[in-house]
Amino acid sequence: MPNRTVFFISDGTGITAETFGSSILAQFPGKPRKVRRPFIDTIEKARAVVEEINHTANAEGKKPIVFITMATEDVRDIIVDPACAGVVMDMFRTFVEPLEHEFGMKSNHRVGRFSDAAKSEEYNERIEAINFSLAHDDGQSAKNLASADVILVGVSRCGKTPTTLYLAMQHGIKAANYPLIPEDFERGQFPSTLSPYKAKCFGLTIDPERLTQIRNERRPNSKYAALENCRYEVREAESMMKRNGIAWLSSTHKSIEEIAATILRDIRPDKLIY
Amino acid sequence: MPNRTVFFISDGTGITAETFGSSILAQFPGKPRKVRRPFIDTIEKARAVVEEINHTANAEGKKPIVFITMATEDVRDIIVDPACAGVVMDMFRTFVEPLEHEFGMKSNHRVGRFSDAAKSEEYNERIEAINFSLAHDDGQSAKNLASADVILVGVSRCGKTPTTLYLAMQHGIKAANYPLIPEDFERGQFPSTLSPYKAKCFGLTIDPERLTQIRNERRPNSKYAALENCRYEVREAESMMKRNGIAWLSSTHKSIEEIAATILRDIRPDKLIY
Repeated sequence: MPNRTVFFISDGTGITAETFGSSILAQFPGKPRKVRRPFIDTIEKARAVVEEINHTANAEGKKPIVFITMATEDVRDIIVDPACAGVVMDMFRTFVEPLEHEFGMKSNHRVGRFSDAAKSEEYNERIEAINFSLAHDDGQSAKNLASADVILVGVSRCGKTPTTLYLAMQHGIKAANYPLIPEDFERGQFPSTLSPYKAKCFGLTIDPERLTQIRNERRPNSKYAALENCRYEVREAESMMKRNGIAWLSSTHKSIEEIAATILRDIRPDKLIY
Repeated sequence: MPNRTVFFISDGTGITAETFGSSILAQFPGKPRKVRRPFIDTIEKARAVVEEINHTANAEGKKPIVFITMATEDVRDIIVDPACAGVVMDMFRTFVEPLEHEFGMKSNHRVGRFSDAAKSEEYNERIEAINFSLAHDDGQSAKNLASADVILVGVSRCGKTPTTLYLAMQHGIKAANYPLIPEDFERGQFPSTLSPYKAKCFGLTIDPERLTQIRNERRPNSKYAALENCRYEVREAESMMKRNGIAWLSSTHKSIEEIAATILRDIRPDKLIY
């Protein structure tokens, strides 16, 4: 889709329109120019966006693709009007109407899934999980490990920190992370702090070739970053996890989203129902 | 929708199905039981999920709502088969087909938006932003503040940390955060470390009543948490931000998603096009 522009328009944050639209667009080759327009919640703002869409259509000679999530009817009407030159993908209307029929009730046209979030229990759990994960990053604190949902283990820079923060932020999971370091390998013993919690440990590993790249960005030409040392640490860490019955996966070709979904499925399947 | 169960099924992580489905469901009152089923990528796994759906339909006497994002055709066919008792909302099929027509090409049935993520530049920027935001949490480091996209300022516990992490994780924004503390108020001066960067500072504030609750969870009955002190700090911080021309908003009734979208719109509108 060369030279194609995609708009994500919402009367809320636009996160839903963007997440959804991006996964639809991933079904096609090419990289479109993307434009976010959050908080379009008045007729005037909607008219201004339609002008922008029409201007783009003229300039590029191709209809922009427009993903919208609009709970406000009269604002939505401006965007789906034939005067708008975009190809409009109206996510709410398409799916909300059949559900109104199935539930036998009208929808409430609430803007966004996050409205009045500060009052929701689920939201507060997410914030608490983020604070927990920060306090238990990189083995900083052994306090309250008993209340962790998950403890990620692995060598330094294999991707533990972003994954624990993602688990906390997206899923409200209290995720600690604890490094496996050369001293552990010399002793040949799994960190004793973690011994009582093996059942909730999950391992991350990484290709030594990738690890040496990442570590070299942080400490160029150090022993820490040397390929040989990375090979040693990864081999020892994997062997230690195997001996201790800890499941692991490699972060080399996986995103934090994929790793997080796998961890939930494998060690906290209860968190898949909520 | 009392006693209604909702399934989010995907051959990838299921994040898209869940984000999208949740915002659709927010249009209706009530809190359904939600079930995540990621990585349903074989016919056997799909059949097992259909059994689960049908069992739920029987047990509850109501059709479960089923949001699916399936790029794999033959697996998808099992879920949308009439033998499945759920009300199926097929997000990909509904929107991908009109786009195939518009683009004049077939979709590639790629699973998920995160496939081969480790190789994408966008993904690496997100990870780098997370590391930056962690290193610049709570004024920890003044190094490299010049390369921050955004610096959040505000009193302790007003929501800076989760917001910066969210900006980094979702939007790849390098977001630092820096506390405004009683010493700053006594001096009556904006922190000198930040003076060169006022243009990229954004303020958070919070109702003193809410702040005292949050701080009391951390340090019960301290001066730090006392309502009177919270009122003083919030008043001084707001007045300091006003004198220094720094825009701010209140986190009291806003989620990190809403705050992040507002910050992007107000101080980094360039990041709305990417």
